[in-house]
Amino acid sequence: MPTLVIGNKCYSSWSLRPWLLLRQLGKDFDEVIIPLDTPQTRAEMLKYSETARVPVLKDGDITVWDSIAIMEYAADAWQLPVWPAKQASRAMARAVSAEMHSGFTGLRSACPMNLGKRYARKDRGAAVAADVARIESIFRTARQAHQAEGPFLFGQFSAADAMFAPVVTRLDTYNIPVSDDTRQYMDTILSLPAFKEWLAAGLKETWIVPSDEVDEEPTEILRKL
Amino acid sequence: MPTLVIGNKCYSSWSLRPWLLLRQLGKDFDEVIIPLDTPQTRAEMLKYSETARVPVLKDGDITVWDSIAIMEYAADAWQLPVWPAKQASRAMARAVSAEMHSGFTGLRSACPMNLGKRYARKDRGAAVAADVARIESIFRTARQAHQAEGPFLFGQFSAADAMFAPVVTRLDTYNIPVSDDTRQYMDTILSLPAFKEWLAAGLKETWIVPSDEVDEEPTEILRKL
Ligand SMILES: N[C@@H](CCC(=O)N[C@@H](CS)C(=O)NCC(=O)O)C(=O)O
Ligand SMILES: N[C@@H](CCC(=O)N[C@@H](CS)C(=O)NCC(=O)O)C(=O)O
Repeated sequence: MPTLVIGNKCYSSWSLRPWLLLRQLGKDFDEVIIPLDTPQTRAEMLKYSETARVPVLKDGDITVWDSIAIMEYAADAWQLPVWPAKQASRAMARAVSAEMHSGFTGLRSACPMNLGKRYARKDRGAAVAADVARIESIFRTARQAHQAEGPFLFGQFSAADAMFAPVVTRLDTYNIPVSDDTRQYMDTILSLPAFKEWLAAGLKETWIVPSDEVDEEPTEILRKL
Repeated sequence: MPTLVIGNKCYSSWSLRPWLLLRQLGKDFDEVIIPLDTPQTRAEMLKYSETARVPVLKDGDITVWDSIAIMEYAADAWQLPVWPAKQASRAMARAVSAEMHSGFTGLRSACPMNLGKRYARKDRGAAVAADVARIESIFRTARQAHQAEGPFLFGQFSAADAMFAPVVTRLDTYNIPVSDDTRQYMDTILSLPAFKEWLAAGLKETWIVPSDEVDEEPTEILRKL
């Protein structure tokens, strides 16, 4: 059985991506959690990958690090339906996933993933607003072209939904204003059985990662410590 | 015939990646150049992609933006030998390519790609040194495992070599100290016919991108303006 090495479920946005994909596609795997931001984190991560980062997938002799490479591995080695079936949709799904992989640093740095709290709506600056506008445009374009096939970005659930799942939680956690369409898509992701399983486990964790806790009074505390 | 939209060859590191891959694999394509950092750049780029970034591939009705998505498209839609033939090598090639795609920001920001000049060796700080150490480790590990099959990272030329080509030019441009093995690999890339074609075209360009020109006296000027 393959092993997926991940960070804490409450905070590790890159880990959520391949975990959600594999779980939602019904692939069995063992899980190893390395809590982020402890004195042991780096040494523990180095046991699995020289990058000292998670996620990392171990499958027999093969080690695959980096979220998007793990997703391509699942498609390639296990022939899972990771990407949409149609060529044109697959091309766009990979493009938006790659865009996510290297971008949206405004939203990512101002609004760290934190499943344990919710915060009040407020102006979070121009970089966040520009990222959210682009994200809503991606969601709108992809979903309008595939609405006959299902509620996900490309109709059926795919790696693109997994890539944007931590964006969905951030929009929710920081109460960022979005269109009704985006809210509907967020609810689709947040109510996935695999996402709920991840969330429930995250809310039981007791580790705190100070760098992912913004300096604001939460409006809601979901994780009781 | 597909069209690849790219930035100036002298400076556009993300454009070099898919261009080099497609050219080296013998795929025919038309080319559109949008010079970076001009008053028209953004508007020109928006004609091809809402990201306002290059590279962008147009293939009939299909638009693919982002370097790594274009590479996967070439493998998927055109069945080109983009990735190594062996499963384990393919997994690692995708992992190092994804690591490149989202990382090495120390080297990328301190040492912008600039094919028109060479600079003196000097200490470029801890972030650059850490990135170079990791890059040399990737090169060493990949090449040692595939040395019987050829001089590239995974034996035969693959997308991983294309992904790291702008790193190779930076190591060369900024005269960064590297091992003999790394220098040998650099020479392999710098002497590829496709790379030489790109370079020759870049050296004929007359655009200057001030943000990619470091504030140092060059030791050599390859592009005579
Ligand atoms: N590009 C990588 C990014 C991985 C990454 O940055 N992971 C974070 C956790 S979400 C990490 O391991 N950081 C190292 C640390 O916190 O020590 C991917 O897509 O997998
Ligand atoms: N993640 C993208 C990055 C593309 C990118 O940042 N391209 C730069 C040029 S190398 C760009 O178009 N910048 C916009 C500008 O200069 O206006 C990719 O891999 O294709």
